[in-house]
Amino acid sequence: MKLTILGCYSATPRALTNTTSQVLEINNHMFLIDCGEGTQVELRKHKIKFNRIKHIFISHLHGDHFFGLVGLISTFRLLTRETELHIYGPKGIKEVVTLQMKLADSWTNYQLIFHELTSENSELIFEDEEVEVYTIPLNHRIYTNGYLFKEKEGNRKLDINLVEEANIHMAYYRKLAQGFDVTNNDGILIKNETVTKAGVKPKSYAFCSDTMYKEDIVPIIKNVDVLYHESTFLEKHAHLAPRTKHSTAKEAASIAKQANVGTLLLGHYSTRYDGLNLFKEEAQEVFENVELCEDGKTFNF
Amino acid sequence: MKLTILGCYSATPRALTNTTSQVLEINNHMFLIDCGEGTQVELRKHKIKFNRIKHIFISHLHGDHFFGLVGLISTFRLLTRETELHIYGPKGIKEVVTLQMKLADSWTNYQLIFHELTSENSELIFEDEEVEVYTIPLNHRIYTNGYLFKEKEGNRKLDINLVEEANIHMAYYRKLAQGFDVTNNDGILIKNETVTKAGVKPKSYAFCSDTMYKEDIVPIIKNVDVLYHESTFLEKHAHLAPRTKHSTAKEAASIAKQANVGTLLLGHYSTRYDGLNLFKEEAQEVFENVELCEDGKTFNF
Repeated sequence: MKLTILGCYSATPRALTNTTSQVLEINNHMFLIDCGEGTQVELRKHKIKFNRIKHIFISHLHGDHFFGLVGLISTFRLLTRETELHIYGPKGIKEVVTLQMKLADSWTNYQLIFHELTSENSELIFEDEEVEVYTIPLNHRIYTNGYLFKEKEGNRKLDINLVEEANIHMAYYRKLAQGFDVTNNDGILIKNETVTKAGVKPKSYAFCSDTMYKEDIVPIIKNVDVLYHESTFLEKHAHLAPRTKHSTAKEAASIAKQANVGTLLLGHYSTRYDGLNLFKEEAQEVFENVELCEDGKTFNF
Repeated sequence: MKLTILGCYSATPRALTNTTSQVLEINNHMFLIDCGEGTQVELRKHKIKFNRIKHIFISHLHGDHFFGLVGLISTFRLLTRETELHIYGPKGIKEVVTLQMKLADSWTNYQLIFHELTSENSELIFEDEEVEVYTIPLNHRIYTNGYLFKEKEGNRKLDINLVEEANIHMAYYRKLAQGFDVTNNDGILIKNETVTKAGVKPKSYAFCSDTMYKEDIVPIIKNVDVLYHESTFLEKHAHLAPRTKHSTAKEAASIAKQANVGTLLLGHYSTRYDGLNLFKEEAQEVFENVELCEDGKTFNF
């Protein structure tokens, strides 16, 4: 699981900082999460192959999270993309994109499929053999979802010595990998766990931005390996957090602790601050394993 | 008159090149012309004061000319702008901007005034004491206007020795500057041109992008000091020009020659080419005084 931070600041793109966008590589998928203005240029800078992006998840329709989307869709067209593209985001996202295409009298030559979200409850919005994606309903000024990306339980690993000792026919190896008990050549039932062990532990990543402190999300993101939680403010501006429906670094840490996550990533910093160290320090008063997002940084988990 | 090229490439923003946007400083006005994605960052890089921009002219609704507009409008709001902002552009521009504000549930705290254009004829769209702006109807795949910026004839310059010799009362100096004949202290009519000379010659700038070769614009832009004319293609791709409704460098030069302009600026280069020198060379076969736009370049006229 590899996460590339294309942008992690709030409000407006500036000469040296970008607004929210991330690329999550998980099990051969390349998911784009949020798409602030200039995201397509950041994708180029990081040499991320445009065609590998087949799913884009937009948290909410504030400009710093989606003003780069229509440009990216349009660039895909100019590059004569043929691969279909799925867009997940709040209701309205389809209208705003299609209106701009209509005004430009230009339509995509690839399939553009919108999945508009309206539910206030967490729901499964994507699933294939390896990965599931769920929404995480957040509490912001407008309808907003975070996203939970979960690898599915992988195949169990066969202990080939034990399997042969148990006299199991090769035709059953696949069933064993899938976790089933099987019958051996002598007609005896062999319990799966006596000849296999757990495969690679599946990874999970939760993206939570923008939101005020919301304990309701804890059960949804319980035990995730990595949690990105917005931390717009430091403690000295904590009074601004509920008013603007954002969080402080300490509140993000509190959610991380309650959810028992592996690592907490902070981001969506207000551009009023000069440095980032205090974000980490304040969060670590509550939860130890904190990392700071920075534009261009890559995390491997 | 000072022109700053924020971006001058066609199609899509890339790591080192930007799509169309220019800032024209003329007579204390700061006009923004077109606004591709990322324009707000380029404005910051050039330290152009956001508040000085009161008028934005959008040629047409292709993304490489206007995908940066909504972000800029939104950033103005975040910076608590109070100065009113006028947007000139094709019909539809208001709908696309206001839809995005509606979805974000955020409205400008400054006056945002749209001037939607639909005419196929050149029309006066802005005028104050010093400057006039006219549309230049172009021929592109969708409704498109260029813009003609003209300083008005300035005040005449008084020759103070001649004025005193002519025994003219000071109360009439302003009338003289405005070009009127006046009566002196002895009741004699003094012809204006005998005691004044012409003021600074008014400057003019024509922006023409995107368009295929269109001779009809020649009378509108006749004798301008500076003409920016798109030159998407070199001669070897001349066959693509009419099909995509763009121009070659040579066609831009032909328009410049017929209109007897002072300087021709080329831009809106296709991103298929590695260098720009051939654009200048091919244009100069037709018209001598050619300059190449490049991102970040400033021209003083």
